[in-house]
Amino acid sequence: MEEKQIIRWIKDHCATKQKQVRVGIGDDAAVVEYDKENYLLFTTDIVVDGVHFIAKTTSPYQVGRKALSVNISDIAAMGGTPLYALVSIGMQQKTKALVYEGIYKGILEMAKIFKVGIIGGNLSRSDVLFVDIFLIGKVRKKDIVLRSTAKPDDLLFVTGTLGGAQKEKQFSFIPRIKEAKIIIKKTKPSAMIDISDGLASDAKKLAEASNCGFEIESWRIPVSKDADVQDRISSALYDGEDYELLFTVSPKIAKNIPEKINDTQITKIGRLTKKKTFILKNKDGTKSKTFKEKFSHFS
Amino acid sequence: MEEKQIIRWIKDHCATKQKQVRVGIGDDAAVVEYDKENYLLFTTDIVVDGVHFIAKTTSPYQVGRKALSVNISDIAAMGGTPLYALVSIGMQQKTKALVYEGIYKGILEMAKIFKVGIIGGNLSRSDVLFVDIFLIGKVRKKDIVLRSTAKPDDLLFVTGTLGGAQKEKQFSFIPRIKEAKIIIKKTKPSAMIDISDGLASDAKKLAEASNCGFEIESWRIPVSKDADVQDRISSALYDGEDYELLFTVSPKIAKNIPEKINDTQITKIGRLTKKKTFILKNKDGTKSKTFKEKFSHFS
Repeated sequence: MEEKQIIRWIKDHCATKQKQVRVGIGDDAAVVEYDKENYLLFTTDIVVDGVHFIAKTTSPYQVGRKALSVNISDIAAMGGTPLYALVSIGMQQKTKALVYEGIYKGILEMAKIFKVGIIGGNLSRSDVLFVDIFLIGKVRKKDIVLRSTAKPDDLLFVTGTLGGAQKEKQFSFIPRIKEAKIIIKKTKPSAMIDISDGLASDAKKLAEASNCGFEIESWRIPVSKDADVQDRISSALYDGEDYELLFTVSPKIAKNIPEKINDTQITKIGRLTKKKTFILKNKDGTKSKTFKEKFSHFS
Repeated sequence: MEEKQIIRWIKDHCATKQKQVRVGIGDDAAVVEYDKENYLLFTTDIVVDGVHFIAKTTSPYQVGRKALSVNISDIAAMGGTPLYALVSIGMQQKTKALVYEGIYKGILEMAKIFKVGIIGGNLSRSDVLFVDIFLIGKVRKKDIVLRSTAKPDDLLFVTGTLGGAQKEKQFSFIPRIKEAKIIIKKTKPSAMIDISDGLASDAKKLAEASNCGFEIESWRIPVSKDADVQDRISSALYDGEDYELLFTVSPKIAKNIPEKINDTQITKIGRLTKKKTFILKNKDGTKSKTFKEKFSHFS
């Protein structure tokens, strides 16, 4: 049984009949009824030493900053606003207090920018350093964007640039909360997801959740200056850790999507298809029929 | 800097000014405004291999069951009802799918009993096995019980029996949700906490949060049949993992506390004091002035 099957098993067994729950497992965040105008959003994401950072080469500040940022990015992908966080840290007992302080300084830096209250948490001994964050947010009902509601022929857009984010961007990015709100205000996407595992993998997740395939035009992908010079397109497709937004818009209203939001470019890179295949088109007319999977990521 | 100082530092730096937040870091759960009659409760607790269980001798089912139960116990200690959970699991990549399934079966067993919806989560690679759960609950505003609101001379009660819980009870206990509600209905406690680190440690937390000391009469402590036969009182005071409720009641209304709730005994074990010392009185008239701390637990 692979990761996908494990997640399938979990989804099947955890299907809840609670009528307050609008969306359970399977989107960037869970969606629960709140008041007349808003839903509550719940998400959790973790950073683990050796998987999402290397403690020897990453400062505690960077670890904390990334831990909160990746969660805020999940809330952005739903069109929401982050509100409160609980922080669970595991660390060897001999670890110095300065490490805690550094991690918290990174968390608090992002918490301040996005007005997130740190309202609880937990310290535990663990042979492996990790920071697990639970983030609570809210979203106006009329603004919520799921990953499962795209239609064939919807156009595929991405914010910012992709590739090479493991070099530096993963520890310094600003989650796209503001950009998501502006996009939704201009024209509501039919679906949205944040890019954490790489464009190829996350486009596939959005397309599969929406019961579609996609066609991405490789020459349109906005490649970061940090992408691997040997194979810039593959770097943009598979590196991951970009934390940009990938979203779809009905072709009828796609003209409302701006080319830039402040300094952030918005790029049309392809479209969804009725046929459930994942196609990369090249400028010379060649097509790759499927994306290679970078790894069974468990992340 | 020790654990206590680290937590102090975190509390000081995370104090939030959000007006929706009633209680942040420092109680069994965070308390946030919800609707006219209810608060939302947020808590997180983790079980880590080598700290809260030993993977070699504990089944995945037991690990999952404990992971959710300890969180439900935190909601019980606030007088609340658990609603939704997010589950974050870290595991080595080579771990078999059966382990995930076993953990989830343990979680789902408790989720079913307490009608908790599993609405999100996360799987991650990690060299150390852990299950981190984020639990959302609610509590009627008029029923909420904090740990910081006891007064000197309030009487100290405990549910069930204490000691030796690491043998078996930690993996089989039923969190005291029902008992908490019955106690609150009969007479509202002035403060409440669940016993996870041991009676001595958690009584101290409640007393300190309430700006009091306490006097516990050792011969009144309800000692479990599983407690260490060599020193049954120390076992009940320091073993931890009991997940019973410790609560205080004003002496004026303490007569309303029943001696039993179904099969669970409720025992008066002492009282809070104005003087901020932590005293154990023995039947022969001797007193120990302070509790020894079992260990700097980081748990």
